[in-house]
Amino acid sequence: MKRSHRVGAICQILTESPQKLFSLNYFCDKFAAAKSSISEDISAAKEAVKASGYGYIETVSGASGGVRYISDISPEKAKEVQNDLCNMLREESRILGGGFLYTSDIMYDPSIVKGMAQIFAKHFKDAGADYVATIETKGIPVAFMTAHLLNLPVIVVRRETKISEGATVSINYFPGSSERLQKMSISKRAAAPGSKALIIDDFMRGGGSIKGIAEILSEVEIEVVGTGVAISNIEPKKKKVSNYFPIVYLGNVDENNKFVEVIPNSQIY
Amino acid sequence: MKRSHRVGAICQILTESPQKLFSLNYFCDKFAAAKSSISEDISAAKEAVKASGYGYIETVSGASGGVRYISDISPEKAKEVQNDLCNMLREESRILGGGFLYTSDIMYDPSIVKGMAQIFAKHFKDAGADYVATIETKGIPVAFMTAHLLNLPVIVVRRETKISEGATVSINYFPGSSERLQKMSISKRAAAPGSKALIIDDFMRGGGSIKGIAEILSEVEIEVVGTGVAISNIEPKKKKVSNYFPIVYLGNVDENNKFVEVIPNSQIY
Repeated sequence: MKRSHRVGAICQILTESPQKLFSLNYFCDKFAAAKSSISEDISAAKEAVKASGYGYIETVSGASGGVRYISDISPEKAKEVQNDLCNMLREESRILGGGFLYTSDIMYDPSIVKGMAQIFAKHFKDAGADYVATIETKGIPVAFMTAHLLNLPVIVVRRETKISEGATVSINYFPGSSERLQKMSISKRAAAPGSKALIIDDFMRGGGSIKGIAEILSEVEIEVVGTGVAISNIEPKKKKVSNYFPIVYLGNVDENNKFVEVIPNSQIY
Repeated sequence: MKRSHRVGAICQILTESPQKLFSLNYFCDKFAAAKSSISEDISAAKEAVKASGYGYIETVSGASGGVRYISDISPEKAKEVQNDLCNMLREESRILGGGFLYTSDIMYDPSIVKGMAQIFAKHFKDAGADYVATIETKGIPVAFMTAHLLNLPVIVVRRETKISEGATVSINYFPGSSERLQKMSISKRAAAPGSKALIIDDFMRGGGSIKGIAEILSEVEIEVVGTGVAISNIEPKKKKVSNYFPIVYLGNVDENNKFVEVIPNSQIY
């Protein structure tokens, strides 16, 4: 096998499984090549991945070491993702009445979701999370893609208890949008007590749901180490959670003039 | 830039966006290289990707042509995914009582979900689908990952109507497990009438939910071109749908003897 073939294959294998550690021996065996050759291949793969602008290859030294691919996004690409999201949200056809916007097509589109997940994965890569937690339904894809990039399992908090979840813990909470009490539940098997989770969701208004997720996680002894939301509503200014990272802010939705105010989060680049 | 760096970068860029077409000019501009060099790089990238065993690079000729990465999985790797899934399902700690198994950790784990999605993406790559459809909640990750590999948007059928879904179409249906009528709803904006969808879900018992999804899709003029389920229960033998592709079959769940019968679908390899 030629060097360029091995380098290409290494780039692909690492990219397919972000954050997964591969030993040098794995590649020696796979390509029937000497360790010295594979070392040079990996150096070349590092340069290659740097050039593509998506992430980087990291070497972990020691006996149980190896190389892994860390998902990343350049400031220029992050800005592109943000701008695409802003432009889509500004489309007047999304206005549903009552200040609601139709966003399911955005939250269910893998190409847009991947960009948002890359922003979250970069921002939270050193948060020390063991899980990515979300609440059903619309936030699941972006939470799942973020988890894929960070190589973490997902916890999905449910609205109702289900037989297939086994024993559950439930709480009642006040969502931001209404003063009607709502319920959420989590399987006791969802995560090991003492672990840490990152909360990722598609939308936040008052922060009631996010606060509820944090509360239910603390009931099963899981600590929240970060919160990311794709879209944060500007109003109400006073949220029920203080620490969160949005990709864009949603302002005034003017039904009569068909105008949607969207502001990118300038902290991203 | 060296050839091996360009080849590695091409492999990575294509792998990051399955099924997305990139023109030769895109790479010429990105690497400031001549078309003849890029052509040779792409030939090398094809060999490299073939060696890694995940998929292949396809050339589309013509003025609007280019190259794209098609997700694939070798029979050996598909068998590995199946065996891993079988072994996990056989763990006696999953037995919940009433014949139920706890599977959320499997359905929410990106590394396992990716393998299942690769099997679905390979099986359905020529089905001509415009969308991947599923019903909330546990099937969303595998449906979404399959959609990512096929570069298609997702439709999520909801159990309840939500303000944020806009105008919806609802149906009542009989799930396989009980004779209690249930409801599902779909946003009228979810897909363009006249398009085609692939149904992907995590579990099928009698096929009532899958039949319901097909019915509600037909209400919004979407044709079903394939159905994939991660786990199909063997009983009842007579399903409400006739054409479906499971990864594994779930047989007897013996609570007393702590035994779970799981059989891989031999059609896969």
